[in-house]
Amino acid sequence: MPDEPLQELVEREDLPAMRAWLAERPPYLIADELTRTGSPGAAVAFRLLDKDRQLEVFEELDPAHQQEILLGLRDSAFREVVERMDPDDRARLLGEAPATVARRVLAGLSPGERRMTAALLGYPEGSVGRYMTPETVALRRGLTVAEALEVIRERGPDAETVYTLPVVTDSRRLVGVVSLRALVTSEPSAAVAELLAGDALSVHATDDAEEAARLMQEANLLGLPVVDSEERLVGLLTIDDAVELIEAADTEDIARQSGASPLSGHYIRATVFALARARAPWLLLLIVAATLTVNVLQFFEATLAQVTALALFIPLLGGTGGNTGSQAATAVVRALAVGEVRAADLPRVIWREARVGLVLGAMLAVVGLLVGTLLVGAEIAVVVAISIVAICCWASAIGGTMPLLAKKLRVDPAVISAPLVTTLVDATGLVIYFLVARAVLGV
Amino acid sequence: MPDEPLQELVEREDLPAMRAWLAERPPYLIADELTRTGSPGAAVAFRLLDKDRQLEVFEELDPAHQQEILLGLRDSAFREVVERMDPDDRARLLGEAPATVARRVLAGLSPGERRMTAALLGYPEGSVGRYMTPETVALRRGLTVAEALEVIRERGPDAETVYTLPVVTDSRRLVGVVSLRALVTSEPSAAVAELLAGDALSVHATDDAEEAARLMQEANLLGLPVVDSEERLVGLLTIDDAVELIEAADTEDIARQSGASPLSGHYIRATVFALARARAPWLLLLIVAATLTVNVLQFFEATLAQVTALALFIPLLGGTGGNTGSQAATAVVRALAVGEVRAADLPRVIWREARVGLVLGAMLAVVGLLVGTLLVGAEIAVVVAISIVAICCWASAIGGTMPLLAKKLRVDPAVISAPLVTTLVDATGLVIYFLVARAVLGV
Repeated sequence: MPDEPLQELVEREDLPAMRAWLAERPPYLIADELTRTGSPGAAVAFRLLDKDRQLEVFEELDPAHQQEILLGLRDSAFREVVERMDPDDRARLLGEAPATVARRVLAGLSPGERRMTAALLGYPEGSVGRYMTPETVALRRGLTVAEALEVIRERGPDAETVYTLPVVTDSRRLVGVVSLRALVTSEPSAAVAELLAGDALSVHATDDAEEAARLMQEANLLGLPVVDSEERLVGLLTIDDAVELIEAADTEDIARQSGASPLSGHYIRATVFALARARAPWLLLLIVAATLTVNVLQFFEATLAQVTALALFIPLLGGTGGNTGSQAATAVVRALAVGEVRAADLPRVIWREARVGLVLGAMLAVVGLLVGTLLVGAEIAVVVAISIVAICCWASAIGGTMPLLAKKLRVDPAVISAPLVTTLVDATGLVIYFLVARAVLGV
Repeated sequence: MPDEPLQELVEREDLPAMRAWLAERPPYLIADELTRTGSPGAAVAFRLLDKDRQLEVFEELDPAHQQEILLGLRDSAFREVVERMDPDDRARLLGEAPATVARRVLAGLSPGERRMTAALLGYPEGSVGRYMTPETVALRRGLTVAEALEVIRERGPDAETVYTLPVVTDSRRLVGVVSLRALVTSEPSAAVAELLAGDALSVHATDDAEEAARLMQEANLLGLPVVDSEERLVGLLTIDDAVELIEAADTEDIARQSGASPLSGHYIRATVFALARARAPWLLLLIVAATLTVNVLQFFEATLAQVTALALFIPLLGGTGGNTGSQAATAVVRALAVGEVRAADLPRVIWREARVGLVLGAMLAVVGLLVGTLLVGAEIAVVVAISIVAICCWASAIGGTMPLLAKKLRVDPAVISAPLVTTLVDATGLVIYFLVARAVLGV
């Protein structure tokens, strides 16, 4: 099979080689390469796929790239792809598409599909309703195993999954869940109601989607029933969507940790301006916050003029405090994200992070003392060492506390980025440093 | 149901309340609380659960806490829990347990279970073999759907999953995969061989487990067959283990991004010294690297003594450079982790990050110019502004490049942490700053 990247074949417009390349790859790899290729080349390659594979590949793309491909298709092909998409994927595509594209998509749908999509779009962004599939196979409470399997055989092909089967009353109220595994390993005459899984977890369609996804992960579920405010079944959140939700949340948290907004698309395809835009707001905020360090240094300018050597350690102290603080912040943000720490743990976290800072500070102070003594002299070295201990203790406590305070204020803890902590610790660390210097050196 | 945390009930030794608490919670929540409670209280609570729930709760714990619980059980209970564990979970427990515990676990096992566990432990750490389940239901190629369903009914209860069914030849060579969904929605007389899924992905038992997990996520698979070097089926990697692998990898990457080693256990349960130990090595390395900034400033000390005001902007410039660099590094590390960027993209990444840095630098320079002019005067403000542009461009290019270089050198790109980039940019940024100052101010 051709080993060149698809992109090069597309650039050469080598259709036979493109066909051969596409024929040999699984859909997720094709989707990957289409994403890197970009329109209009991607649309050309996409059109070479047969109908079934088109759909499989299309489902692997994220909404932004789905749009790109769609806009490169003729009307009939466009309509067919959209009609065959899963309703939840379609809702996500529409949620991010500009109004003109959204209208074109909705116009091409059959009434049934349009109704399902509109229902999903009615739920708030980021809620379970946007990510669940409405195409479930629900079983009535009174069925036997054999009857249930018959229902699945009939309605299974249209459903997104048949492995988690919600069991409902006649008025569609959720009773519990039965797994297909339980059905196929039981006697045909057994009652479905006897096979209900022990812990019947469910979520509401308006609940937070990321939290529901983490619940599925923790409880090892392949499907989680979704109900409305009257506990009636409206859909099912499936594990593939849950995994994507968790990955997207992690990507977002990681970007936020460096003070950037998450990119909505692919790194290699994003324009320079898109990358800059994702990073600019925090950098601006942080440089404005950093003027505080200029003020602090101005305040101590007389001391600095008297002992210029103090300036030599400003970056080292700022760096050490910043690093200690951002380690603490990163650890606590992650512990919050995976549920190991709760807002109520605040006093406990402050106390332990302060002690961690003390231990780390004492260790780092030894290095400071050595470096200081070797490069400038014992007196300033003592100032540096004492400052390191105090700054580390302070930075660690602040870094650990801020994400919890954010959580208490109902702000996403991930916005307490390493750069934010670093900038804060920079300014306050300088105050500590010069106060110690004044006390020790008597200036 | 009692709303107090389990921990408090354990401390009060209120057995009836503990029983009530345990009876009302799903296993994953019980596991969560046991983890926070710690031994010996956790073992006391664990013993109050009935046998089946014990196993369900036990499987939700991570290996470190499984050990804690095990050591609090009587011999017969200990043996029973271990015997009933999934072989892959047991292998992971043994992989991390001290030799004495491992021997006790192995001694208690029945011969069949011991053989399976030993086989898994034969694979290298971090390989698929350690995470796969050997308990699969494999179907012979010649079966009909009805015969296959009969096999599943018989052997399904002992298997970890029945949703992904590997299809094999008589010599156990992997032919492909059929889904239970395909079986239950097909005619009983149909041939299994006709229902094989289109793209038959599989991995080798010695392959990297994280990569296999990401493949499952990308290709939306619930199970991925695992083969030996002769393409014979040896097991199945299931989605729940894949999700855990991805989450653990993300947690590790996030910790690394702040220059800390990943904690092996739970944040709240880790001791102050365990937390400090995870963070100390990088902090030490970074403070030693930061002495470079002291050297640079010493080199320019004459300039600094002449124009003390230059010192005022050292933290602001260091901070801005560090933030810009770590944003670039974080973005590229993540793009590498999720497969959006490859090592071969190096020139492309340098070029685009340098331009992103230029755009960001130009924007931030305006702030620098304003702040500088207001606080110290136009001349120094010009120095600051020019330095910001140069430093941002440099920091962004360096930050984006280092993870790719690490990847080329076969080092985990995640070790290119934000603090490492910050420290490097700190020292080099100072050189840029003072060279600009000398040129503009003529000192």
